[in-house]
Amino acid sequence: MAGRPGRFIVFEGGDGAGKGSVLAAAAEALRADGFDILTTREPGGTPEGMALRALLLSEAGEVWDQGSELLLMTAARVQHMTRVIRPAVAQGQIVLCDRYVGSTLAYQGGGRGIAPALIRQLHADFVGDYWPDLTVLLDIPPAEGLRRSQRRLADTATDEGRFEGLALDFHERVRASFLAQAKDMPDRFLVADAAPPLASVQAHVLAGLRAWLQTSLTTG
Amino acid sequence: MAGRPGRFIVFEGGDGAGKGSVLAAAAEALRADGFDILTTREPGGTPEGMALRALLLSEAGEVWDQGSELLLMTAARVQHMTRVIRPAVAQGQIVLCDRYVGSTLAYQGGGRGIAPALIRQLHADFVGDYWPDLTVLLDIPPAEGLRRSQRRLADTATDEGRFEGLALDFHERVRASFLAQAKDMPDRFLVADAAPPLASVQAHVLAGLRAWLQTSLTTG
Ligand SMILES: Nc1ncnc2c1ncn2[C@@H]1O[C@H](COP(=O)(O)OP(=O)(O)OP(=O)(O)O)[C@@H](O)[C@H]1O
Ligand SMILES: Nc1ncnc2c1ncn2[C@@H]1O[C@H](COP(=O)(O)OP(=O)(O)OP(=O)(O)O)[C@@H](O)[C@H]1O
Ligand SMILES: [Mg+2]
Ligand SMILES: [Mg+2]
Repeated sequence: MAGRPGRFIVFEGGDGAGKGSVLAAAAEALRADGFDILTTREPGGTPEGMALRALLLSEAGEVWDQGSELLLMTAARVQHMTRVIRPAVAQGQIVLCDRYVGSTLAYQGGGRGIAPALIRQLHADFVGDYWPDLTVLLDIPPAEGLRRSQRRLADTATDEGRFEGLALDFHERVRASFLAQAKDMPDRFLVADAAPPLASVQAHVLAGLRAWLQTSLTTG
Repeated sequence: MAGRPGRFIVFEGGDGAGKGSVLAAAAEALRADGFDILTTREPGGTPEGMALRALLLSEAGEVWDQGSELLLMTAARVQHMTRVIRPAVAQGQIVLCDRYVGSTLAYQGGGRGIAPALIRQLHADFVGDYWPDLTVLLDIPPAEGLRRSQRRLADTATDEGRFEGLALDFHERVRASFLAQAKDMPDRFLVADAAPPLASVQAHVLAGLRAWLQTSLTTG
């Protein structure tokens, strides 16, 4: 075979929703099923993305205008898409990616108030209008997600937490944007309630992914 | 007075045209005339711009896609405009800036082939469609400009020279773009032949600037 294209699956959701934990479990189970899985994440995912991430985080984001922040995130995404995601999908891999343009729409759009149309236009012009085949949206009330994040931040030293100090209504707007994105394209979203215990969320998402992959890979 | 706005004057031209040398002489002479002058440059001009410049130069630009490069340059320009240029002009200063969006149109547009309309749109959306009141274009045949740059590079250790290794026809396209920009907006350009000896170019540009400032500041 000349190589059947893979699939591009993104995990989205607010801080502490469980994206990292659910993605890791899904990757492990799907590998055991025999799928060729690549896991990656944003921001980061390439050395250039890591450098931009460091630049954005270095001063708690305060020195960067909102517009600049959006431009840097999009530049990182261009690199991530052309160097990592698109080649992997072209080679037939199933790419599981922790955050993508949906997070930009939610945080910079819903949260910070940049027009979503501008974010989409930038994505179309620079990332080439490349959208996920499926987005797993882990939906969680922000108060609960932030509680989980804080617990984790207390345990481990990370540089995450740029948005975590922002007011709850910021995070409510982020959540509303994610849900609106899912409503706009119901066929391309798997929305999971992320409030139940982790093992149960992981099992629910895995079942959804297996069903979707089976349909998608046999019809697509 | 509640503060009369200043002016935003940009020096553009190919590598080695003499932008830095002519700008410095103009700044000195205009300061002696009593003008409140601020000199600045792109890329750079802010700590964020310097960091992005370092990132772009660190690997000879090879790791960055053309689109990413354009996004990073625009992000640096947003920071430069909101933090440095616009506040200075608002306070009545005459800002002399070494390169601005005209260079992006010339190098990324004319040189690399990104659609100028996309560069202008990005400028409008993110930098707020803020254009120079006057652009001093130092026009030089690329072969001569590159000869000058190479002489300078041999003397001093700089990180410049990203574009200087590119083929002459790249630089011909850059020059053609600068000249087309001037032709599009003749009222906002002072085009100077940069081939004569430096002192003569400096004197010619200074005379042009003094005349323009007198008209602009009395009618504007
Ligand atoms: N369903 C759950 N129930 C209880 N705890 C959970 C659940 N899901 C995740 N957690 C815990 O919450 C914390 C955050 O989880 P995780 O890092 O996977 O979330 P995330 O969505 O990737 O967060 P961030 O956006 O901050 O990267 C971890 O300590 C994780 O073990
Ligand atoms: N008219 C001129 N005649 C001869 N030499 C010149 C002239 N103008 C500038 N030079 C010399 O050419 C070199 C490049 O000048 P300068 O650095 O001012 O150009 P530039 O346009 O800022 O270049 P770059 O785009 O590389 O920053 C310097 O060594 C300068 O002294
Ligand atoms: Mg995470
Ligand atoms: Mg110079």
